[in-house]
Amino acid sequence: MNVKPVFMFQTAELGQSVSKSEFKKRQKTLRKELLDLQRDVRDAGLSPVLIDFAGVSGGGKGTSSNLLNKWMDPRWIHTIGYSEPSTEERQRPEFWRYWRDLPPRGQINISLSGRYHRPLLDFVHERIDEDQLEHLCERINHFETTLAADGALILKFWMHLNRDVQEKRLNKLKDDPLRQWKVKPVDWENWELYDRFVVAAEHIISHTNTGDAPWTIVEGEDFNHRHLVVGETLREAMQIHLKKTSFRQSYLEQLDAEVAELNDHGISSAVSRQATIVESLDLSLSLEKSDYESQRDELQARLAVLHGKAVRQGRTIVLVLEGLDAAGKGGSARQITDVIDARTYKVQPIAAPTQEEHSRHYLWRFWKRLPRPGFMTIFDRSWYGRVLVERIEGFASIEEWQRAYSEINDFEDQMLEEGTILIKFWFHVSKETQLERFKARENTPHKRWKLTDEDWRNHEKYDAYAFAAHEMIQRTSTLSAPWTLVESDDKLYGRIKVLDTVCKMLEKAVGESEPKGQIKSGA
Amino acid sequence: MNVKPVFMFQTAELGQSVSKSEFKKRQKTLRKELLDLQRDVRDAGLSPVLIDFAGVSGGGKGTSSNLLNKWMDPRWIHTIGYSEPSTEERQRPEFWRYWRDLPPRGQINISLSGRYHRPLLDFVHERIDEDQLEHLCERINHFETTLAADGALILKFWMHLNRDVQEKRLNKLKDDPLRQWKVKPVDWENWELYDRFVVAAEHIISHTNTGDAPWTIVEGEDFNHRHLVVGETLREAMQIHLKKTSFRQSYLEQLDAEVAELNDHGISSAVSRQATIVESLDLSLSLEKSDYESQRDELQARLAVLHGKAVRQGRTIVLVLEGLDAAGKGGSARQITDVIDARTYKVQPIAAPTQEEHSRHYLWRFWKRLPRPGFMTIFDRSWYGRVLVERIEGFASIEEWQRAYSEINDFEDQMLEEGTILIKFWFHVSKETQLERFKARENTPHKRWKLTDEDWRNHEKYDAYAFAAHEMIQRTSTLSAPWTLVESDDKLYGRIKVLDTVCKMLEKAVGESEPKGQIKSGA
Repeated sequence: MNVKPVFMFQTAELGQSVSKSEFKKRQKTLRKELLDLQRDVRDAGLSPVLIDFAGVSGGGKGTSSNLLNKWMDPRWIHTIGYSEPSTEERQRPEFWRYWRDLPPRGQINISLSGRYHRPLLDFVHERIDEDQLEHLCERINHFETTLAADGALILKFWMHLNRDVQEKRLNKLKDDPLRQWKVKPVDWENWELYDRFVVAAEHIISHTNTGDAPWTIVEGEDFNHRHLVVGETLREAMQIHLKKTSFRQSYLEQLDAEVAELNDHGISSAVSRQATIVESLDLSLSLEKSDYESQRDELQARLAVLHGKAVRQGRTIVLVLEGLDAAGKGGSARQITDVIDARTYKVQPIAAPTQEEHSRHYLWRFWKRLPRPGFMTIFDRSWYGRVLVERIEGFASIEEWQRAYSEINDFEDQMLEEGTILIKFWFHVSKETQLERFKARENTPHKRWKLTDEDWRNHEKYDAYAFAAHEMIQRTSTLSAPWTLVESDDKLYGRIKVLDTVCKMLEKAVGESEPKGQIKSGA
Repeated sequence: MNVKPVFMFQTAELGQSVSKSEFKKRQKTLRKELLDLQRDVRDAGLSPVLIDFAGVSGGGKGTSSNLLNKWMDPRWIHTIGYSEPSTEERQRPEFWRYWRDLPPRGQINISLSGRYHRPLLDFVHERIDEDQLEHLCERINHFETTLAADGALILKFWMHLNRDVQEKRLNKLKDDPLRQWKVKPVDWENWELYDRFVVAAEHIISHTNTGDAPWTIVEGEDFNHRHLVVGETLREAMQIHLKKTSFRQSYLEQLDAEVAELNDHGISSAVSRQATIVESLDLSLSLEKSDYESQRDELQARLAVLHGKAVRQGRTIVLVLEGLDAAGKGGSARQITDVIDARTYKVQPIAAPTQEEHSRHYLWRFWKRLPRPGFMTIFDRSWYGRVLVERIEGFASIEEWQRAYSEINDFEDQMLEEGTILIKFWFHVSKETQLERFKARENTPHKRWKLTDEDWRNHEKYDAYAFAAHEMIQRTSTLSAPWTLVESDDKLYGRIKVLDTVCKMLEKAVGESEPKGQIKSGA
């Protein structure tokens, strides 16, 4: 008696096949419906569709993705086959390329050998153990959950062949002059490791088979069958997703309207009565001009040396400048860039998103802009806009900005794991100083361009910004990526504090012999 | 110049206080509103509220939870202070006690020293490293996400004191004859480790501060201030949650109505045309009565020995019997229990949930029933009902049953980690055999009670059940917790297969010297 338990992949070893005539019949309906659905998804403009093909060589990842392109309008489909990371890609956190390749809303992405590929092969070739594989699966889950929460439809197909069928398939390809290029030595190597391959696949599938991003295991032996399974699964998922998205949209809008009644600019009136850490800053701190100049000269000299060292060590540096309007972010940035080689840094002013940016997940434009090793990017405003201006102005719904804190922590974790030196500043001024500076700008012809109606409106929301900054600091000032608060009523003081902090942080990271201060609570 | 970055806990070291008169004034409004909200949450009957207090000793976890009980109606609040696990608790997976203590919908749970306590102290006392801490945080995130997806409101308060204030607080308590019992030697030990304590807390908070279950760091120095922060944060969260829940409910209902149009009994008609693994079973397999009897006798004898061994080794055994109606689950269970000591097992027939069960997360009733070491529980139907009957009958919404696969995998992972021997069976019969057995029941007076109208209805849904079982096997037949499919058209064959499988699995687990078969795909 055979009492072996059944393995998940056996659900895709049933010898299923579809006759040519049935395939033609079902294909005809399917093509029309997929095309219609693709158009509906585009018209709704709400949610990119992310399709991932993984599985054994010869299982039909390529032909299925080609067929989807044939069935639908390929102008709105991006098909990406990932291979070994390019230099560009290797110099960024691993997920950089998957973020970079995110399609805009309304479009479809098909990815082959994507985010599941490396964990799978690393486990098969025993470069990582089960715990590490699980960690990588959690990272993938975070990525998929983040996108699904933003409305993406995520489908993953595992193309399966059993060992014998795979062998036959590889042999058949090898003997076919037109297609033998498809079989590489590595495919045979992997076939030799077939058993370990399916064990790895089982781990990955069972750890990443979430409601937000389910796997479908596809029996890959019969072409007609597998094409229909892929196409019909996609059709059903798109149908349901379109319905979900339209309900969800109206749910979010209703919710925000109701919450707006409870809150003032995203801040509950009761809770905002609490004191904030930014209020507790001593804004009377100041420097005499002569002190300022001598300290500046010394710090800039140190900075130049340290930055050069960091560049030679191939370190990636990211500076985040956030703060109230007219608090001196721009001036501080110039003091830093003044003394470093223009080929090694870039200032990224972050304004309202462009149409291209707006049509993707809000983190996309920041992922895209991560510098490579040996470079520094200064973000003049940043991803923290999600929990500052977007929260206060209602550009992000309450659910969106509330989950952003953990999305941001995850984003920064990935930078830090890659060795990035991340330094974050919050520039703060008193309400009075802000008003004075606005008035001064108004009265100085060459500064007037800097002042907009929006500035005046933001001035009225001063308290809301202070409170949002307080919550942001509470939730994102981690030991590995802490905020430094810059008292900027006196611009000279603020600039020196920034220069000094950057020097100290760089010293800590690139190994200068300065005594290091411990970051401590209550100190 | 102080250029230290700011640490998240400094947002709760601002010296905030609230005067007695202001406290009285705000408390008055707050109490009334909290009471009203508590009643609204109860009336809506939708979502339990889970409040967790964590933080430093002396930070006010106890007094704040007492005050919430005073402000609201304590009949609908369960306050639980966790301490070292009891014997009962130590014998189950770690999260068993948190599942057991879940309140029914409409009620409020306040937990002190709960799920965050052990990871925190284990890290402080260097019993676990950062990677392990992160793993524990992910487990907590899964727990919270699972409950939040089910509609729970989850709030977590970290009560903070800085080092000096904590010292003063502990000294003051020590000198107060009425309250000195509150300070234990371990509190002073932890105070000595204050710095490591806040580092651990920072890791935990930043890894578990999700949109579904956010942390609020509360400045614990001034009693009035901290009480108001806790109360007012709770008020705001309940207000928003009530709105969310009512929208969400109608969203799910609308969605299900629309999806029902696409699907027949939870199964899309196009996709269900695929073959299923259960159809591929050879249901002609059968045994002669004499063969059956001799094999049964031998297997039962082996089972008795192996089970005794497992009991003496203190192993936990969980058997899951799922399958089509009239496929012989009950008879198989009896064959197992016939030969083992009645004090060491329990058969749990799972029918429609009771009111008590229905008012909680669907996994609650299974968590509650997990056996302790040295015991076996046979679940006659199980948590898989979520993706079988609940899916097909529409008792679970599409989002609910779709995410259940990963919730179930997570649940079983926790059992397996604890060393449970988990054996899962799917009993399958042909449509014809099922019909024959129903008819036989109808015509046999002493079996007629077994047959209900529901059975006839389920018979009509035979194909839907087969397809749901196929998908269940595809998504939950993992290497560590695989399904065994039981061909049961011949009951004798089915029973022997079950006995044989249980023996082989027990041998593998308790170390009998039988040659072990490898579970392999394609075998």
